[in-house]
Amino acid sequence: MAGRRPGRPATRREILEAARDVFAEEGYDRASVRAIARQAGVDPALVYHYFDGKPALFVELLELARDPRAVMEAAAAVSGPGRGARVVTGFLQAWEDGDPTPGTRFRTVIQAVCTSPEAATALREFLTERVWSRSLPSDDRSSVRARRASIASQLFGVAFQRYVLLVEPYASASIDEVAALVGPVIDQLHGEMPQSDLDAMEAVVGLDEQR
Amino acid sequence: MAGRRPGRPATRREILEAARDVFAEEGYDRASVRAIARQAGVDPALVYHYFDGKPALFVELLELARDPRAVMEAAAAVSGPGRGARVVTGFLQAWEDGDPTPGTRFRTVIQAVCTSPEAATALREFLTERVWSRSLPSDDRSSVRARRASIASQLFGVAFQRYVLLVEPYASASIDEVAALVGPVIDQLHGEMPQSDLDAMEAVVGLDEQR
Repeated sequence: MAGRRPGRPATRREILEAARDVFAEEGYDRASVRAIARQAGVDPALVYHYFDGKPALFVELLELARDPRAVMEAAAAVSGPGRGARVVTGFLQAWEDGDPTPGTRFRTVIQAVCTSPEAATALREFLTERVWSRSLPSDDRSSVRARRASIASQLFGVAFQRYVLLVEPYASASIDEVAALVGPVIDQLHGEMPQSDLDAMEAVVGLDEQR
Repeated sequence: MAGRRPGRPATRREILEAARDVFAEEGYDRASVRAIARQAGVDPALVYHYFDGKPALFVELLELARDPRAVMEAAAAVSGPGRGARVVTGFLQAWEDGDPTPGTRFRTVIQAVCTSPEAATALREFLTERVWSRSLPSDDRSSVRARRASIASQLFGVAFQRYVLLVEPYASASIDEVAALVGPVIDQLHGEMPQSDLDAMEAVVGLDEQR
């Protein structure tokens, strides 16, 4: 593949695009900073000048897509029917926008975090520190955190069926169709639960704080 | 590592155990039938005698754990409060029983299906043909299939947070604690939804049948 175009310095973005290509082709585990530098047509030292190694490149790539905070901010701001569908639409668009073959970016990220504990840590910190905590900082009750975790689980499981397992109708449906299918489930998870269930959930989430 | 003990033929199970070790160590993508045969102390031809290649070995490994149908049968048979918690318990036990380091088997499977389309197909067929259709054959309404998909998404997302991302409280909690946290969510997903939401879901699931 082509490296850097002659006559101007490689930008940070060109290194990121090279990293995206090499991660997708080789998998996170096998991708080396040296191979990423070669793809970008620069010296490996320049990669280290911009980024603190492979996990940092990996996290930056997550941000190359549409800012995921926008999805959660939309979810927090809007209420009433239709909120769930908008969350689903935003979540899937964040994975698919600019992805030449929809699903490649998701598969690359998941494969990376299953293979490398450092990539898993990077993604966990990205989600908890940059997405969850900034977009929904005002309500830190355990029951709210438990609901949030169940919505995250739901979105993640749907993406896994759509992009990896290719389960129908998730795999072939348009984003709008998936939003129509999964939106009501998200709304339901946002909705009311019996107080006894919430108490049980609070008890478990509270354990985390004592650990 | 040790190969086959001398004096008796390698069993099918010994080949499977070798495959499990090699998949976990090398990743599905890099694991070769030759390496699996070497680990089991047999000729590669014997591996092909028992199994129709790597995807077949992969599916057999999924069954090495507690039969996952048991989980879904329990879910179908039991109703009322507490059902969700039992489903969660069965699902997590199926992944953790006999796993030397809980989470290794899950990470190996997910890494395999993200890397290899043939492994993804094998897992999808295993889930749809052997788990879902046999355990819950009697009700094929689209709305029931849509709920089932949302429960599968939820379980999968929780496992991902517990075994891969190591998100608290899922990561450090006992199976019973996770069941207390996620069970009510599963019960809620089994429960009542407004008819208008069910109609919207049916419309999308119905598309699948026309494709």
